[in-house]
Amino acid sequence: MQGLLLGWERCCTSSKVLRFADLNLRGIGQVMFQDNPLSGLLFFIAIGWGSYVSGMPQVAIGGVVAVVVATLTAQWLHVDDADLGAGLFGYNAYLVGLALPTFLAPSPLLWVYIALGAAVSVPATLGIANMCKTWGVAALTAPFVLVTWLLLLATYAFTAIDGSGLPMTDAVAPIDPAAANPLALGDFIQGVLMSIGQVFLKASVLAALLLVAGLAVNSIAAATFALAGAIVAVVTAHVLGAESNLITGGLMGFSPVLTAIAIGAVFYKPGVRVAIYALAATIFTVVVQGAMNVVMTPFGIPTLTGPFVLATWLFLLPRQKFDPAPAA
Amino acid sequence: MQGLLLGWERCCTSSKVLRFADLNLRGIGQVMFQDNPLSGLLFFIAIGWGSYVSGMPQVAIGGVVAVVVATLTAQWLHVDDADLGAGLFGYNAYLVGLALPTFLAPSPLLWVYIALGAAVSVPATLGIANMCKTWGVAALTAPFVLVTWLLLLATYAFTAIDGSGLPMTDAVAPIDPAAANPLALGDFIQGVLMSIGQVFLKASVLAALLLVAGLAVNSIAAATFALAGAIVAVVTAHVLGAESNLITGGLMGFSPVLTAIAIGAVFYKPGVRVAIYALAATIFTVVVQGAMNVVMTPFGIPTLTGPFVLATWLFLLPRQKFDPAPAA
Amino acid sequence: MQGLLLGWERCCTSSKVLRFADLNLRGIGQVMFQDNPLSGLLFFIAIGWGSYVSGMPQVAIGGVVAVVVATLTAQWLHVDDADLGAGLFGYNAYLVGLALPTFLAPSPLLWVYIALGAAVSVPATLGIANMCKTWGVAALTAPFVLVTWLLLLATYAFTAIDGSGLPMTDAVAPIDPAAANPLALGDFIQGVLMSIGQVFLKASVLAALLLVAGLAVNSIAAATFALAGAIVAVVTAHVLGAESNLITGGLMGFSPVLTAIAIGAVFYKPGVRVAIYALAATIFTVVVQGAMNVVMTPFGIPTLTGPFVLATWLFLLPRQKFDPAPAA
Repeated sequence: MQGLLLGWERCCTSSKVLRFADLNLRGIGQVMFQDNPLSGLLFFIAIGWGSYVSGMPQVAIGGVVAVVVATLTAQWLHVDDADLGAGLFGYNAYLVGLALPTFLAPSPLLWVYIALGAAVSVPATLGIANMCKTWGVAALTAPFVLVTWLLLLATYAFTAIDGSGLPMTDAVAPIDPAAANPLALGDFIQGVLMSIGQVFLKASVLAALLLVAGLAVNSIAAATFALAGAIVAVVTAHVLGAESNLITGGLMGFSPVLTAIAIGAVFYKPGVRVAIYALAATIFTVVVQGAMNVVMTPFGIPTLTGPFVLATWLFLLPRQKFDPAPAA
Repeated sequence: MQGLLLGWERCCTSSKVLRFADLNLRGIGQVMFQDNPLSGLLFFIAIGWGSYVSGMPQVAIGGVVAVVVATLTAQWLHVDDADLGAGLFGYNAYLVGLALPTFLAPSPLLWVYIALGAAVSVPATLGIANMCKTWGVAALTAPFVLVTWLLLLATYAFTAIDGSGLPMTDAVAPIDPAAANPLALGDFIQGVLMSIGQVFLKASVLAALLLVAGLAVNSIAAATFALAGAIVAVVTAHVLGAESNLITGGLMGFSPVLTAIAIGAVFYKPGVRVAIYALAATIFTVVVQGAMNVVMTPFGIPTLTGPFVLATWLFLLPRQKFDPAPAA
Repeated sequence: MQGLLLGWERCCTSSKVLRFADLNLRGIGQVMFQDNPLSGLLFFIAIGWGSYVSGMPQVAIGGVVAVVVATLTAQWLHVDDADLGAGLFGYNAYLVGLALPTFLAPSPLLWVYIALGAAVSVPATLGIANMCKTWGVAALTAPFVLVTWLLLLATYAFTAIDGSGLPMTDAVAPIDPAAANPLALGDFIQGVLMSIGQVFLKASVLAALLLVAGLAVNSIAAATFALAGAIVAVVTAHVLGAESNLITGGLMGFSPVLTAIAIGAVFYKPGVRVAIYALAATIFTVVVQGAMNVVMTPFGIPTLTGPFVLATWLFLLPRQKFDPAPAA
């Protein structure tokens, strides 16, 4: 694996085209914090497969268009080379490019909308990262969430962009208790895998397995925390009595999965204390997912990875003040 | 009084159990900015009495459970000893522990929910304090407000936690003019006392008097500003034409009371100019309370002390740039 | 022009009354970033005319009362002399004073409300500017937006202040396609001019022309970007299919106009690259205007210049990290 990556790196050094592909693949890998073109490639294949089987090829294409537009925009803006090289200007745009065709009907103007969102995601990433570094935390997917929320909300005010895939707007009301069914083993396994797939807005078992593989080639810890996070999320959501179809569709678990990876394997040094801390953060992310589902109800837009961003910031912000892993 | 506290401090130095009790009492005292175990004890008795007479003992018990869980969490996270010793990791949790059983129906899972909220309040406090210190301001009760809002909102998405005590969700509409009645002297006095009691979510005259006593044993200025703030809030709310039952229930005044203490007696050096500044802040907090009542209407959750946090931050943020009390 | 201003400056130096007038005129000029009393005077005349022809003289008077109250408050708070001299404590208050009588029915209490809003705008400006300077960005009109939103929202909770001019609250729903009509040349020109006028909440052609003149006397670049921004906004809004009456009323374009001036002519050094960056920011502000119109729908308040603040912050925050105009 290491040799393969070294060979690839050597090819990239001598070819501008391959370097450009490398930047974009790393951008895709960074959706789950992996600065590794092979992770990006596996994620990319997972999304391609998921789009194909769900009959929505425009989603996979939207992602590619967006990440390329963002990389070009970042180069035009003379951003920091190291950050660009690590794919930090690609992952938000990639998610914008997946989300817009998922929720909006295909049309020529949709592609302009995707390009606009992808381009704006670059100053948004720079700006939010600039704010966040004041407290030593990362921008996470906040630029994606903010830009996409605005683009989706605006479709209610515009007739030329059709938000036919958006959730219905509704008044806030407690959910029907009948919606919380017992969780059979098959539902449980499906919920766990879909929770991983929904990180990229894709509900497909094969896609989920490819995503886990993409994590594992770069970080066994990340793959482990992704799976553990998905299990914790499904159990927590079920115990609290969330709607069963949301659980099995992975819609209660994709933000907790990201929280588990971020807190457990990326931003703190892994260990027993950090694992306990990550467990609390993952459980709390399920609560935040429930809360944000409620807040979004009257506005008819999805939470995207907003719950992950909010909960993870909450558990990362103290980083300058304490360290759950005691210094050696 | 001073001798009593010195004696207590001596006992705490020699006993881990008493020191733990001291930490928790100071945590309760910090709800109204008092780093004093006797203030905390009087507040604690006030809440106990208020819970008892309203037939909701789980509220007082919830507060105790939460503050203990938070203190243990803070110790596990190796937080700063001076901050822990001053009770700065207890007050948000104590309020979480009072608020959840006030708005949610008793059940075994409720106690898990309280413990989760109390534990999460510690990183939330660390994180928000870390952000706020960039501009020289305190976290106030923002960690309590944020964590509790999320926990309450989520109950609409979960069937296993029953938000039976939450306000009804509704569309925003101007209030019925008939709801704003003349304010008789008895109503006025009741409104003033309930405004102080509602800081701890308790509407009881005796509880309010105990709270004022708890302030007075540590700071006459704080007690004075609490009473003056309550009077200003009730008068302002009535002049603006707020609903009379909100005024007499203390629900327009509890945030302004906290603003008055914070601006008038805690974060600026008391004096005539500061008193005028605190008066403006207190009046504006009544407006913010009205505004946030409106914003919360479609979501069916209470404002908690959100109006206090927002208005007080607004009047504290300039602190680095000016001082209403001119330097000597 | 330069001689006229120098003469005026000499008069101000020798007269406290003229200096006070100068401060307030510069405050009005700063609504569109012009630290120039002549710009302020032309803006002031434009608003006076607009108020007169629309039969709402209280709007122009509200603006004057507010800017005077804010200047006095700023002096009482001993703010920085240079900032006060540049009018930085006047523009938010001036907008508060225009907005409240635009949306609220005249009454004696309205004037107390205006004075309160104007006074509070000063600590709000100090505080928000203090936060923003951490990242090298300006407060823009965020203090106006925040304070006015709170004051307007609160009117739904109070019977003594009548929000008769506020938009109706409603559930979020896609707009009727029939509302997006073809845009004839007359409509186009009207939309462009109204977009400039609505920066000051005024829909009048003559007022718009006076506003452009007020920009031009201090900065030809600012006047150019205002007009170009208005044209871009009207075209973008029409292409996206916004409601035609919002476009011709200037309600889709006033925030983009401010974004175009801010990004194109004020905070970056003008040039081709900056113009392209400003173009993207202006187009995106139209999307944000649409999104915020939707978010505000259930709450029955206007967006004010919130879309300008949000979009411009997004495009200004990276300023410390990159410069679209490459260093010479």
